[in-house]
Amino acid sequence: MDFEKATDKRVTLVGAGPGREDLITIAGLREIQSADVLLYDALVNTKLLDYAKPNAQRIYVGKRSGKHSLSQPEINALLLECALTKNHVVRLKGGDPFVFGRASEEIEYLESFGISVGIVPGVSSAISVPASQGIPMTKRGVSTSFWVMTAATKEGCFSRDLKLAAQSSATMVILMGVRKIKEIASFVSSYRIKQTPMALIQNGTLPKETCITCTLNTAQSAFATVDITQPGIIVIGDVVADQSSFYDEEIQRVLHSYL
Amino acid sequence: MDFEKATDKRVTLVGAGPGREDLITIAGLREIQSADVLLYDALVNTKLLDYAKPNAQRIYVGKRSGKHSLSQPEINALLLECALTKNHVVRLKGGDPFVFGRASEEIEYLESFGISVGIVPGVSSAISVPASQGIPMTKRGVSTSFWVMTAATKEGCFSRDLKLAAQSSATMVILMGVRKIKEIASFVSSYRIKQTPMALIQNGTLPKETCITCTLNTAQSAFATVDITQPGIIVIGDVVADQSSFYDEEIQRVLHSYL
Repeated sequence: MDFEKATDKRVTLVGAGPGREDLITIAGLREIQSADVLLYDALVNTKLLDYAKPNAQRIYVGKRSGKHSLSQPEINALLLECALTKNHVVRLKGGDPFVFGRASEEIEYLESFGISVGIVPGVSSAISVPASQGIPMTKRGVSTSFWVMTAATKEGCFSRDLKLAAQSSATMVILMGVRKIKEIASFVSSYRIKQTPMALIQNGTLPKETCITCTLNTAQSAFATVDITQPGIIVIGDVVADQSSFYDEEIQRVLHSYL
Repeated sequence: MDFEKATDKRVTLVGAGPGREDLITIAGLREIQSADVLLYDALVNTKLLDYAKPNAQRIYVGKRSGKHSLSQPEINALLLECALTKNHVVRLKGGDPFVFGRASEEIEYLESFGISVGIVPGVSSAISVPASQGIPMTKRGVSTSFWVMTAATKEGCFSRDLKLAAQSSATMVILMGVRKIKEIASFVSSYRIKQTPMALIQNGTLPKETCITCTLNTAQSAFATVDITQPGIIVIGDVVADQSSFYDEEIQRVLHSYL
């Protein structure tokens, strides 16, 4: 029995999806159900924790813009401690673990102690949150590629990739950029035509989801009162025109600028 | 009752995920279970169809490289016919419907007849198939963005975006490019250092999954015997070095070149 338990020990990184609880995968839900301990992030829907065994330990290790409850080394150490003392450890991350999820760091840390890590991918917020607003990543005759990036480098300035992306015809998806959204619009408008549509979606796939659409040209007024304490996903590209209220919002904004 | 049935009529576009049946979302599975008719593509795991009601109609509308069983206008017409005659139509697509899924065309066609379309996102193959090989999209200090694209434009030549992507530091994910994989490697090596790691993954997340890794420099021999009739996902970027057999395979290949 002890031997069986010992071989049963494992750590699984699970993508929780973009927000709505039923956007987790079947495989992901099964891992939650068999977990002895769950370490979960800020962007994970906490309703998912209800599917865990009643006696499973639930540990919040969330990070939010500017507010770290645990540093990455602290999370790594906690993961290791759990892996050594519990049978099945589930590390639950918002969206997909391999998209800006720092999953690789956690995997490498655990593997350096001989602990192998399973991965269950999740529905990435980068793709599915725009989708929830009817914005596709690619569309025949409109966009044949998409580029997912963060706004700023560790040094705080815009990355060279942001410039190349602005010069390309790719749909741009920018994560962790809400605080700089007006600067981003201004920067990209040096390279793309000013009528290029743009969107900011916050609380994606959740009941309180909001979406603001505009063009690069009207972005400064459109995003004047955005709640920058909430994370959000920025999309720039002609595909944004597929969002249902894009044309109405833009006409209102242009008309208003003449009043 | 008739009225209730009438309001119950709907079409849902569902992402089936990358291949493994348990990588569909809970929401996606529920839609399958309530469908009266399912229209599904070549890359959808057919085991998912077993979850539909026994009397639900299952229609294959798959397309494969060079072999179209139904053209897009034929699929659109069939979708419309189903939408007008059945209560719940599920359009099941491999991966995520909004990533090269031509979802927008089907939605616009149906909406032009006043039929609204629900969307359930899926786990995108572009992200999850590399993940199944331990290859992350982004990694601190290695890659801060990723760019998903097809290899060729409608005209058959490499797109301008492929060139810009090659010049950037983004992880490149190339779909529908297996037939041109050697030309892609050669093209990208004009812009990136020749030691840049590269991978081709076929049958991703399924038991018969295969992965070949190499560098841009060794790509011509590595991909000499690839089965180009099978679709696959190409990844180019330093993150590929995280794949477990990358270093071993590359050392073997380099040693072999001296023999």
